[in-house]
Amino acid sequence: MIVVKVGGSVGIDYDLLCDDVAALWQEGQKLILIHGGSAETTRLAEALGHPPKFVTSPSGYTSRFTDRQTIEIFAMVYCGKMNKGIVERLQRRGVNAVGLSGLDGRLFEGKHKNSVRMVEEGKVKLLRGDYTGTVEKVNMHLLQLLLDNGYLPVLTPPGSSFEGVAVNVDGDRAAAAVAVAVKAEALLLLSNVPGLLRDFPNEASLIPEIPADRVEEYLEFAQDRMKKKVLGAAEAVQGGVRRVILGDARMAQPVRRALAGRGTVVS
Amino acid sequence: MIVVKVGGSVGIDYDLLCDDVAALWQEGQKLILIHGGSAETTRLAEALGHPPKFVTSPSGYTSRFTDRQTIEIFAMVYCGKMNKGIVERLQRRGVNAVGLSGLDGRLFEGKHKNSVRMVEEGKVKLLRGDYTGTVEKVNMHLLQLLLDNGYLPVLTPPGSSFEGVAVNVDGDRAAAAVAVAVKAEALLLLSNVPGLLRDFPNEASLIPEIPADRVEEYLEFAQDRMKKKVLGAAEAVQGGVRRVILGDARMAQPVRRALAGRGTVVS
Repeated sequence: MIVVKVGGSVGIDYDLLCDDVAALWQEGQKLILIHGGSAETTRLAEALGHPPKFVTSPSGYTSRFTDRQTIEIFAMVYCGKMNKGIVERLQRRGVNAVGLSGLDGRLFEGKHKNSVRMVEEGKVKLLRGDYTGTVEKVNMHLLQLLLDNGYLPVLTPPGSSFEGVAVNVDGDRAAAAVAVAVKAEALLLLSNVPGLLRDFPNEASLIPEIPADRVEEYLEFAQDRMKKKVLGAAEAVQGGVRRVILGDARMAQPVRRALAGRGTVVS
Repeated sequence: MIVVKVGGSVGIDYDLLCDDVAALWQEGQKLILIHGGSAETTRLAEALGHPPKFVTSPSGYTSRFTDRQTIEIFAMVYCGKMNKGIVERLQRRGVNAVGLSGLDGRLFEGKHKNSVRMVEEGKVKLLRGDYTGTVEKVNMHLLQLLLDNGYLPVLTPPGSSFEGVAVNVDGDRAAAAVAVAVKAEALLLLSNVPGLLRDFPNEASLIPEIPADRVEEYLEFAQDRMKKKVLGAAEAVQGGVRRVILGDARMAQPVRRALAGRGTVVS
């Protein structure tokens, strides 16, 4: 079993991704696909006159401030456009895909954090009304049911709080939680860069390998969303996943390439 | 087993609906929920500068002309906002709901009609590039799997063509197909009117009963979308569903009220 997470950034080629996923699935490779939708969410939020607000935490992580209107826009893009777009691509390629969010059957369950600490003009502030959460539990029952019956699960945030409220959860860390729960041999975190770059955005500065016990040292090279990928990678390895590969989803055979070690391998 | 279809028109109260559905489910009533999203789709399409185009067929049925951009907007509203909104309401009420579109596991499968005959200025024209389809087959395997394992399925268009392409299918007729496939005792078609009205929009002119073999005679009273409900009702009864009730979803206990015969009963 492998878990493939594909991001939602500009430049990712979902047709090529689905070509590769469908071919692997048809060769008998069991897999679970998880996707993002960040760039489209920003585009839709702007078109609807509710532009996104990104906040930076005191420890340097950037995330989307998710008020109630934003979580609805988020659900439209992630669960509507992106999820069904990928399910459709797989169905057209003969794969019986089933798309689910973390709300469905409470696939991703965790805590609702309704306020976020942010740094603004050098000061730490508390922002309330946030619909953000963590993934503490993966509902394996539903996932296993689908896998045992030949369906390819295509998963997406949002997740569910323990109270059943839709919360924005980080897709990379959700993928790490899924990979640990299903005891995946590998977790692939694919995006629009070749992996972790020592000198971002110079793609020649790719870091080919990171020992899982030294992830902390490498966090300094990670920009923005890459920080969460590195963190997710570390969580997965600590949870028993043997290999995590940060790979490139802008080209043909992104899954096979990553499995072959192209990208940044965390192990 | 009962199948409840709730429309997507203005005035429908989804909180009251989910109160009723959750209470019935917790009393042991097996059910499948199907929903629409028409009004929200029109609103989003207008906000995104791609206003809807409605066409009237030579036989007098009005439907949405669904080009590729429209089917993506449609998926955002139906599968994103509406579907996850209902799943969230049910999860908050303690019901383990799972939301799926007709694309997922090809739940609703049928023919893709890529052109539509329309009447414009008294002439019949052919409009191409339509992503509309029918529901000829319901994937009972996936549906049964969820029901047998305690999940409440929340279903929505679009459907899947036989080629795996997302197509706009009529929600009422999809609900009728599901009701026939699961051998439901009753199909409830709930919307923002009390049922079929002899003198639309006078709500006092409710037609309380229609014999299924005389549906044709009653079609003349049906306005716009109500025509497809009456047609869906007839299809369900012909397929073996004993009772179809056209009921009101603007008030408390809409499911119990319809089950008690409030509305227009087709049998």
